[in-house]
Amino acid sequence: MSMDIDVIVREVGLRDGLQIHPTFMPTERKLEWIRAEAAAGVSEIEVTSYVPAKLIPQFIDAEEVTVRAMEIPGLTVSALIPNLRGAERGLDLGVHKMNFVMSVSKTHNLKNVRREREESVADFKRIVERIRELPEGKRPKICAGLATALGCSYEGRVPVDDVVRYAVQLAEAGADEIAVPDTVGYADPAQVRKVFTAVIAALGKLPVAAHFHDTRGTGLANVTAALECGVRRFDASLAGIGGCPFAPGATGNIVMDDLCFMLDSMGLRTGVDLEKLIAIRALVRKTLPDIEMHGAIARAGLPVHYKTAEQRVAA
Amino acid sequence: MSMDIDVIVREVGLRDGLQIHPTFMPTERKLEWIRAEAAAGVSEIEVTSYVPAKLIPQFIDAEEVTVRAMEIPGLTVSALIPNLRGAERGLDLGVHKMNFVMSVSKTHNLKNVRREREESVADFKRIVERIRELPEGKRPKICAGLATALGCSYEGRVPVDDVVRYAVQLAEAGADEIAVPDTVGYADPAQVRKVFTAVIAALGKLPVAAHFHDTRGTGLANVTAALECGVRRFDASLAGIGGCPFAPGATGNIVMDDLCFMLDSMGLRTGVDLEKLIAIRALVRKTLPDIEMHGAIARAGLPVHYKTAEQRVAA
Repeated sequence: MSMDIDVIVREVGLRDGLQIHPTFMPTERKLEWIRAEAAAGVSEIEVTSYVPAKLIPQFIDAEEVTVRAMEIPGLTVSALIPNLRGAERGLDLGVHKMNFVMSVSKTHNLKNVRREREESVADFKRIVERIRELPEGKRPKICAGLATALGCSYEGRVPVDDVVRYAVQLAEAGADEIAVPDTVGYADPAQVRKVFTAVIAALGKLPVAAHFHDTRGTGLANVTAALECGVRRFDASLAGIGGCPFAPGATGNIVMDDLCFMLDSMGLRTGVDLEKLIAIRALVRKTLPDIEMHGAIARAGLPVHYKTAEQRVAA
Repeated sequence: MSMDIDVIVREVGLRDGLQIHPTFMPTERKLEWIRAEAAAGVSEIEVTSYVPAKLIPQFIDAEEVTVRAMEIPGLTVSALIPNLRGAERGLDLGVHKMNFVMSVSKTHNLKNVRREREESVADFKRIVERIRELPEGKRPKICAGLATALGCSYEGRVPVDDVVRYAVQLAEAGADEIAVPDTVGYADPAQVRKVFTAVIAALGKLPVAAHFHDTRGTGLANVTAALECGVRRFDASLAGIGGCPFAPGATGNIVMDDLCFMLDSMGLRTGVDLEKLIAIRALVRKTLPDIEMHGAIARAGLPVHYKTAEQRVAA
């Protein structure tokens, strides 16, 4: 990551987007997408998920995608891990970062990973222990995500105290970062402020990332609220590709292109070249002609006389 | 307006939306739309524009729409006025509120109303003088809008000092409210904060309204920023119908349904029944089958176990 970045944007479309797409995206095309985004300046990409390929055939090429993505200079390559077995696969590959996820909502956790939340925390502890068996320089970063932290499609609103409790447990267990996702797109800016303020206060200096879905139109509004709370790491997917297979009605991550435009327009440097980023949509479209794509900036274009954040900082 | 409203949302689709739509919406259908929104709890609707019908044939029924909309109990009926002649029409009809508009950008004002900005301010003064000839109880409210305050499709960013200068001039001339529109959808939350903070500081207690377009995906993010500045009046259009005929690339007001959902979810009472509001989309769709409609909440539905702001206040 370069020194002159204010906000880290992370591409999750290859995992969160493709996992519900019925057509297999050929490995070469995935790598093309990853390379193009890295070249556009995206510094971290969740390239795959270490779930069993019989559960999600899209990730049958997880090993190859990981290894070849790691050949791209400067790119942080991350992958989702559902459990210790997934973590073992990541450790074998030497992946840079692993994203563990459990749900704050009891029902969602049971449906999603068939475990009580306490068992998930115990799983996470075992994963961290396993990582710490490696010498310090060889350890991947480990992020712990709190699915349904901002609402659950079974339970509705989730108590802020529960979010904070599990955030603290995962932090104490050794997470390098805590991610707070709006798994089913229920969040509004007021709730984002409440939850992130509480989580950040409880975690001190540990980085907290936001993962919003735009299911109900509030995605970038929630980013605005999270920015105020000091959040500087955001997940998004190119053209808003994606959703959650276990959350009925959830229809897509926030649009990476629109996120980058908004941040840049606000004077926050993301390191991403907007025009290069927008051009990647056509590349994905060519391979997956039937995938649903969203996004306003790609359609409307940049404002007249637009100056990028970098140009404005330099001026 | 009822006492238990935190934010006033105003429908502008019948004016800002229909003015660029090539098909005439029959008067009875316009009134159906207006009545349905009033019944859903929308307390203020911009029902038409007093421009010459030969310029915008959509508004050939301006008189009839105004008079019949004013029969709806409790509804504030407003209309756009481009100039003194338009104001005369409004005064003859006894319309509740008139929305005057000039552009802060010199070029946009010349292209839009063929006047220097100083001439527009002078026009506005004459309009206020004309209103003040009426006895106090008979005067309509007059709102002054600062088009391109958040960006211009000819000049790009517009200096905040210019926005404040014209806001103050219009306020001193006698505006009851100042509206700050993002005419071409260029705004971001940081800029919204900057402009609204400056305008509100300069105007003291005079109400300041926001009129955002979602052209570049930042509409509700900008609402979030404006709310923080204390803004409590927002324009929107059902299903995001609309745009500005004089601003190339501008493609629509923020979506009324999504705005009302977000505000309600934040615990801010709008007085609007979301389900009734969403149902009106079908009514408009039936009459204008080819009009572009947007919106997330209509597609995704309310969250599970959703409680309205009113229910939460009561609890």
